Amino acid sequence: MSQTGRATRDRILDTGLDLLSASGFAGVTIGLLANQVGMSKSGLFAHFKSKEEIDIALLERMAEVAHKRVVVPAMRAQEGLPRLTALVENWLGWSTKAGLVGGCPAAAGMFELDDAGGPVRDKLLDLEKRWDKILKLIIDESIAAGELRKDLDVEQFIWELMGIYLNHHASRRFMRSRDADMRAKKAFQGLVERSTPVRFKQAVKAR
Amino acid sequence: MSQTGRATRDRILDTGLDLLSASGFAGVTIGLLANQVGMSKSGLFAHFKSKEEIDIALLERMAEVAHKRVVVPAMRAQEGLPRLTALVENWLGWSTKAGLVGGCPAAAGMFELDDAGGPVRDKLLDLEKRWDKILKLIIDESIAAGELRKDLDVEQFIWELMGIYLNHHASRRFMRSRDADMRAKKAFQGLVERSTPVRFKQAVKAR
Repeated sequence: MSQTGRATRDRILDTGLDLLSASGFAGVTIGLLANQVGMSKSGLFAHFKSKEEIDIALLERMAEVAHKRVVVPAMRAQEGLPRLTALVENWLGWSTKAGLVGGCPAAAGMFELDDAGGPVRDKLLDLEKRWDKILKLIIDESIAAGELRKDLDVEQFIWELMGIYLNHHASRRFMRSRDADMRAKKAFQGLVERSTPVRFKQAVKAR
Repeated sequence: MSQTGRATRDRILDTGLDLLSASGFAGVTIGLLANQVGMSKSGLFAHFKSKEEIDIALLERMAEVAHKRVVVPAMRAQEGLPRLTALVENWLGWSTKAGLVGGCPAAAGMFELDDAGGPVRDKLLDLEKRWDKILKLIIDESIAAGELRKDLDVEQFIWELMGIYLNHHASRRFMRSRDADMRAKKAFQGLVERSTPVRFKQAVKAR
């Protein structure tokens, strides 16, 4: 691809990601996207063969942006609980921090595409599974560091953390609640506290 | 309204609620709805003046269906924790139990309409606040019955419960995980256990 071609493709994806974050997959129409980028529909088709291809490219772009904003800075924190805490802090409200006009396309996509089949849903499913693996890795590091219980039900921990993420999204963005950050933080702290090793809890009790 | 008019309106709302549950507000177009009901667009306009009016009527219909399926049967359970447990059990996956083809329009709507303004979002916000009040009432009854702590942070309890509901929806419907019911049940049990009175916990410890 030429440099100009790549620049145009980037511009389409940046505009499309904003559109996706604000209006969901149903809101990303080829006509609207072409219009917002300032090109013709046929010009857009020179870069993407179909709406499906655009949606998949947008999810890939989202994963890149999220990785850079959420995962990369967390890796600078100390391995274990400090890194897990940094990851969760970066994750909550990441789309706003990354400058997107709307919410998290992955969270919204899980409610928009739940009854769908096909490659767009498959792509999002794949991204969710990859995210799950990153969480698992960093939780496992916290267990290895002795900061979380060896017998922790890691799947349950991730499941409950996902609930915190989704309700933070709904309560901050839809309910527009001022308490969303505080509630999410309190819920995460509670989740971590009840996942700490027994010997740590006993030491606290003995004080 | 004539009996025939009311029957037609009911048919439009039943069809529309299925469409909403499967495809969200963006999927409920006047053309598609008229087609599925088997009437002309102008025929549909005789019942609803605008897309907005349809969306609001669909949310009202959803609230009626959910109330009948979730709240009414829970009121037959004993006041306190048995009623709260019944309510949560009825709530999880209620749209499927009610025979809708898709997911919960309220949950999906919180992710679809988060960047929107206007009367449809306002209506959903109002319904969410009413649901919050019902949860609070039944949690307060559990506190009065001595089954939940007097100093319980009820708002936090509801916030975390909402997270369980949303991730149950995502994990059962989008991820199509077989564990969704088990994970949600375990999360709810954990939430209840850490909200029980201290004297109850001490009694357990003393055994």
